[in-house]
Amino acid sequence: MNQTASRWRDQLEALRANKLFESVVIGIILFSALLIGAKTYEESSRFEQIIYWLDWGVTLFFLVEIIIRLAAEKHFINFFRKGWNIFDFLIVTASLMPIDDSEMVLLARLLRVFRVLRLVSMIPELRILLSALVKSLPRMGYVALLMFIIFYIYGAVGSFLFHDVDEKLWGNIALAMLTLFQVATFESWATAVLYPTMEHYPYSWIYFISFIFLTAFVFLNMMIGIVLDVMQKESALHEIESGEGEAAEIHWMRENMEQMRSQMDRIEAKLDRQSQAER
Amino acid sequence: MNQTASRWRDQLEALRANKLFESVVIGIILFSALLIGAKTYEESSRFEQIIYWLDWGVTLFFLVEIIIRLAAEKHFINFFRKGWNIFDFLIVTASLMPIDDSEMVLLARLLRVFRVLRLVSMIPELRILLSALVKSLPRMGYVALLMFIIFYIYGAVGSFLFHDVDEKLWGNIALAMLTLFQVATFESWATAVLYPTMEHYPYSWIYFISFIFLTAFVFLNMMIGIVLDVMQKESALHEIESGEGEAAEIHWMRENMEQMRSQMDRIEAKLDRQSQAER
Amino acid sequence: MNQTASRWRDQLEALRANKLFESVVIGIILFSALLIGAKTYEESSRFEQIIYWLDWGVTLFFLVEIIIRLAAEKHFINFFRKGWNIFDFLIVTASLMPIDDSEMVLLARLLRVFRVLRLVSMIPELRILLSALVKSLPRMGYVALLMFIIFYIYGAVGSFLFHDVDEKLWGNIALAMLTLFQVATFESWATAVLYPTMEHYPYSWIYFISFIFLTAFVFLNMMIGIVLDVMQKESALHEIESGEGEAAEIHWMRENMEQMRSQMDRIEAKLDRQSQAER
Amino acid sequence: MNQTASRWRDQLEALRANKLFESVVIGIILFSALLIGAKTYEESSRFEQIIYWLDWGVTLFFLVEIIIRLAAEKHFINFFRKGWNIFDFLIVTASLMPIDDSEMVLLARLLRVFRVLRLVSMIPELRILLSALVKSLPRMGYVALLMFIIFYIYGAVGSFLFHDVDEKLWGNIALAMLTLFQVATFESWATAVLYPTMEHYPYSWIYFISFIFLTAFVFLNMMIGIVLDVMQKESALHEIESGEGEAAEIHWMRENMEQMRSQMDRIEAKLDRQSQAER
Repeated sequence: MNQTASRWRDQLEALRANKLFESVVIGIILFSALLIGAKTYEESSRFEQIIYWLDWGVTLFFLVEIIIRLAAEKHFINFFRKGWNIFDFLIVTASLMPIDDSEMVLLARLLRVFRVLRLVSMIPELRILLSALVKSLPRMGYVALLMFIIFYIYGAVGSFLFHDVDEKLWGNIALAMLTLFQVATFESWATAVLYPTMEHYPYSWIYFISFIFLTAFVFLNMMIGIVLDVMQKESALHEIESGEGEAAEIHWMRENMEQMRSQMDRIEAKLDRQSQAER
Repeated sequence: MNQTASRWRDQLEALRANKLFESVVIGIILFSALLIGAKTYEESSRFEQIIYWLDWGVTLFFLVEIIIRLAAEKHFINFFRKGWNIFDFLIVTASLMPIDDSEMVLLARLLRVFRVLRLVSMIPELRILLSALVKSLPRMGYVALLMFIIFYIYGAVGSFLFHDVDEKLWGNIALAMLTLFQVATFESWATAVLYPTMEHYPYSWIYFISFIFLTAFVFLNMMIGIVLDVMQKESALHEIESGEGEAAEIHWMRENMEQMRSQMDRIEAKLDRQSQAER
Repeated sequence: MNQTASRWRDQLEALRANKLFESVVIGIILFSALLIGAKTYEESSRFEQIIYWLDWGVTLFFLVEIIIRLAAEKHFINFFRKGWNIFDFLIVTASLMPIDDSEMVLLARLLRVFRVLRLVSMIPELRILLSALVKSLPRMGYVALLMFIIFYIYGAVGSFLFHDVDEKLWGNIALAMLTLFQVATFESWATAVLYPTMEHYPYSWIYFISFIFLTAFVFLNMMIGIVLDVMQKESALHEIESGEGEAAEIHWMRENMEQMRSQMDRIEAKLDRQSQAER
Repeated sequence: MNQTASRWRDQLEALRANKLFESVVIGIILFSALLIGAKTYEESSRFEQIIYWLDWGVTLFFLVEIIIRLAAEKHFINFFRKGWNIFDFLIVTASLMPIDDSEMVLLARLLRVFRVLRLVSMIPELRILLSALVKSLPRMGYVALLMFIIFYIYGAVGSFLFHDVDEKLWGNIALAMLTLFQVATFESWATAVLYPTMEHYPYSWIYFISFIFLTAFVFLNMMIGIVLDVMQKESALHEIESGEGEAAEIHWMRENMEQMRSQMDRIEAKLDRQSQAER
């Protein structure tokens, strides 16, 4: 019986690794995305019953697929060792939640939306892109913290100074920081924020222009710098692995040079032995 | 008679390669562009007849030019082996469509507009720029796909949550994605989208600010990274070809080092032979 | 007694270097930031008395902390040799200013806001980010000067030409430069600035589009270039220090090559001596 | 008498090279800029007479300065061999035009504005920045041409299709291209351009979004790439000249390697001679 199980597992693993099976899964994910999109149209209410059953069909397919992938592992705990598998498992089990309960209907709908994210776990190129993004997160975190400090200080100063100009924009520190975020994206910052403020405080342009210089110019650039830095390291690594490009040639030269050094040591030693032999 | 044909072909090829001929073609393309521009002015209706005949003159010139270039090839199939030639041929034959038919008049006009694109096929520098752009397309495709997934998820969530706030902005997933594209370009995102939404859902700023961070900041940067990556590789290739610059020096050193290694091997072998001879 | 002082100092220094102590200080800074934020809410007037005492508690804590760090130094002048210490000292002493004086209440409040900046002096990663920023300031200064000249010239020309179009936008050179800053950030530059001006001066688009090309496109890029340049040098330095990456490998090769040269000199000299001995 | 002239010239040249003289000139340029700024204020009419005489003073000073620099040259034709000198000369002589003529008063004022540009010719760092900019112009020219073609095609198509939607935005190809420039800078592109158009042509979003992708995303990035490319080459050149940094190390290694090769050739030749001598 153990042998039967093993044979079954082999077949499941073959199925999991099958290109066609992968394409079908990607197709079903896309179909699920279209279903979600269809539900946002008013006209879809006529086909509500059909959409309901199609939705359960998709949910069932995903459940079967995850069970196949789980059963294909020798020890089913291995399945949960890959981050993307846990991600898939959570998304699939979350959408098993019954959609009938009228209170939870919105939550259930939102959970189903995240099934589109399974595209990322299915397509390797997207996984690589995302992991490059994740790698730049720690350094970005500190830039974000520095920007938050700047927003906080300008937000506090703004809500102290401009409190009476526009309650909606500068009423408290949270509103002020939101207004500053709007200013940082250059959205109506002059017509809707700067000019009304300058009518009461003619020198408030110093506040806004210094803020724009600090955030929009300098810090945006720092973030670009980080992304580029991570990208360059990635591509240098890739070049070394593939053995092509500048980084690979430098790496090859470095290793070759060490061998040249040892060869020269050997040559020098041989010359020394010759001289001693001759004497 | 075969010889006559060959002599004709040689003359046509000389004409095609002639710098003056090229300049005339570029001049006619620019004149054609001016004609198209002139037609968009109300006042042009007075000169309608003149413009009509000038337009046919340009079309005829392009036809003659393409026939010259076709006849200059030994086997006229060679002409269609270059992508840019096919491009030129399609644009020229498409504008042969009669403009008189009142129903097709708009389509005929639009097809004539694309004749300006022949500038790209005539000027080598523009061809190089465009091919650099095309090379970065595959990697950009995956970034675009990742962004589309983000837009789709936020679009679905947005049309579920904010459906009742503004039917025009969040009525269905297509409208919601268009609204999100507007937000991603920072266009009136705060005054026209965020604040009206916040009146109903005070915490909707989380939705918008997380979306802006995901798209406008992180992904725009990724695209910049790709463009730079492609550019750097292009310039490294160019440096190696021209034999100047850092990449060329590294490449030279790598090749030189291999020769040095083999020379050192020879030296070591000679020393070994000496020692053996002495013993 | 001198020994007692020394023992005290050692204990204070141990306290200062203590990770827990650092965390407590960072916690108090964050708490101080929350207090400042709370004061911007209307509702906070009910808790005015509590906030007042909490604020004095924070001020006192900072005073004690700075005294501990000052006393931990062997010569208290050493404390003032580090820029960040002076920064901390100024912020702490400035917030000792009594908040009761009704006239100074706004200034006192603003000074307390800057206490959040102490986060930068406490977290090393933020200090590194800031020093990278400071390093790029001199080169940025010249770019800023060049941009200021462009703004000044366009501002003067704009206020001469468009003086009568809109007094609020082009009334004098200062207003004109502010308007141009708005144009450079693309904020309502077409709808609110260009189109009203074009009604009086149909060719004013030349003025605006040439300005946008000069500033927004070319100079913004120059600033990005500088930031990237500084970043690359930073990362190259880091690579050399850590001994990993392309820059480190090149540096290693350069040093190694010098040794190879001297070894080859030795080998050649030995060969020469051999030949002479044989003769 | 020739000797007297020569002594005079030496003294003038010493004056020209004098740091203090340079500072005075820069000071006068700044003062001239302030005068121009002052003239844009309504209130300045009270001091009109003073400003008039100050302005003539500045003009006279610049004239004297340019004569000093001209006289300091051995052959006064040498003066006109430097581009910046011609630039200075033109600006100074242009502002000699009498300001009294009521018709020319605006032109005279505008010419005086350009005197601020003399700051660029006086400060070396600004000259370097500008020449880096000028170097990237040729490559930028082709990118600009490619963008112009895209604008022209979209402009023609837009004015054919959307002619009836809004005469002011799409009336002819020139207006349409200006509208597209506004769209490319993201200014009110959705609220003022896209949505009104979509009311008549629901699928016009394809036109706008494809245009935004083509211009704002792809081409802006290409321009950034060019700026960076030029910057990197500049900094690599600078590194080689100063003998520091990666590019300098690689350059040193390349030259060193050539010497190593010839040294190894010598060593091999000596070994060969030894073997022959022994035989």
